[in-house]
Amino acid sequence: MRLRVDLLPHGTYPDVVLVIDVLRATTTAITYLERGADALLLTATPDVALALRSEGMRQDGARPDGESTPYLLGGERGGLPIPGFDFGNSPVEAAAQNFTGRTVVMNTTNGTVAAHTAAQSGKHVFLAALTNAHAAARRARATATEEIAIVCAGTDERVGLEDVYAAGVLAEYLLAMGESSIDDGARIALTVRRSSGNPLEALGSSVHGARLASLGLGEDVRYAAGLSTSTLVPTLVTGDDVPPGTLKFIAG
Amino acid sequence: MRLRVDLLPHGTYPDVVLVIDVLRATTTAITYLERGADALLLTATPDVALALRSEGMRQDGARPDGESTPYLLGGERGGLPIPGFDFGNSPVEAAAQNFTGRTVVMNTTNGTVAAHTAAQSGKHVFLAALTNAHAAARRARATATEEIAIVCAGTDERVGLEDVYAAGVLAEYLLAMGESSIDDGARIALTVRRSSGNPLEALGSSVHGARLASLGLGEDVRYAAGLSTSTLVPTLVTGDDVPPGTLKFIAG
Repeated sequence: MRLRVDLLPHGTYPDVVLVIDVLRATTTAITYLERGADALLLTATPDVALALRSEGMRQDGARPDGESTPYLLGGERGGLPIPGFDFGNSPVEAAAQNFTGRTVVMNTTNGTVAAHTAAQSGKHVFLAALTNAHAAARRARATATEEIAIVCAGTDERVGLEDVYAAGVLAEYLLAMGESSIDDGARIALTVRRSSGNPLEALGSSVHGARLASLGLGEDVRYAAGLSTSTLVPTLVTGDDVPPGTLKFIAG
Repeated sequence: MRLRVDLLPHGTYPDVVLVIDVLRATTTAITYLERGADALLLTATPDVALALRSEGMRQDGARPDGESTPYLLGGERGGLPIPGFDFGNSPVEAAAQNFTGRTVVMNTTNGTVAAHTAAQSGKHVFLAALTNAHAAARRARATATEEIAIVCAGTDERVGLEDVYAAGVLAEYLLAMGESSIDDGARIALTVRRSSGNPLEALGSSVHGARLASLGLGEDVRYAAGLSTSTLVPTLVTGDDVPPGTLKFIAG
């Protein structure tokens, strides 16, 4: 088995891909499904998300105030909510709601882009974060036949310490589960994981973690630092019912 | 001052850029200039290098065997020499020659691409390696007014441990020279530098270092691990005499 960590999304992925955007997209995605959402649709752009909702409303004859739309929209740009969206990209906000029976359409600055890159070639794509780290590693190990690639979303095409730290946590779990050859990205992630303090210290010391704290979103950072608090692994599925321009993830 | 480490080349650079390809392009480039070369021309592709030589030969009326061509060609693809080139990309080979009065045209898999990326926007571009680490850091510090970006070339678009380690060495020197705000890439590079053994151990444990050793090029790895053995900093210059599609570096 090969274990590979891409510190930013790039290249092609022949087998299993674990997409990480700890602050906050994949952490929030796990939370939506934990809180009962049927499915997540990750869109490459906010426009696709907004178009989906207006389409959904027409099909359902929903009221213009949007209360009955089958889709809820969640996302952010630069850490802040997107106009016209129902939710930001906050796992704390998501954890306080009940999404039973709803489909959440997500668009975020980095995480959804990374997922789309991974899905272009990956055979099995999962979303991972610190909150589902152990479950995601187990799932990857059980699924992979050749390679497990951990793909860090980063922030605005810059490497994010928080994602590299989480990749190191996943890599450590994976190495404990069996032999793997590792690449330099995995070596670096393991070094960062072993040299950093606890998850909250690591996330808090990242540029993105500090930025979220300065926006008053420190509770999200604390939530994202919860290690293996969930056993849910968002799993990419394909099929005729997946709207164009989106990736559908369900609880796995 | 901002200190930034890009673990792979990307983005734009407003001020000083230090391009690192420890194994082996920037190490070899420093050696060519140490051994008397007037200038280096880094080309984006091997074809540009070959075209340059045949042009040079026509202009000079040189013999078809190429002995009198003003240009010497050095480079590699996948670690191996390029057909039609005079030299591979070996600092050990370069150190054994005298290049006085010659211009060396270089093309390599990763390093020359990284230099071209840096030169698209960077105001001041230098080549750095472990062998000139202290001098390169001093030069960067003396030149920068705003930002020092250390750009790791990587290997085939994958992060290279050897470059990240060297970036950590440079970052450590730079932080010792004065206050800087640092980004997550710099944090990661510093962590890798502080957690690794000596330079030779770090380079030897990288995927690229192991590959070079398996190709019988272990002496190049040993050479590249020599810390601050040179005070020469290859410096990008512009002007009418720079052939299109090349970057000209001179000793600085």
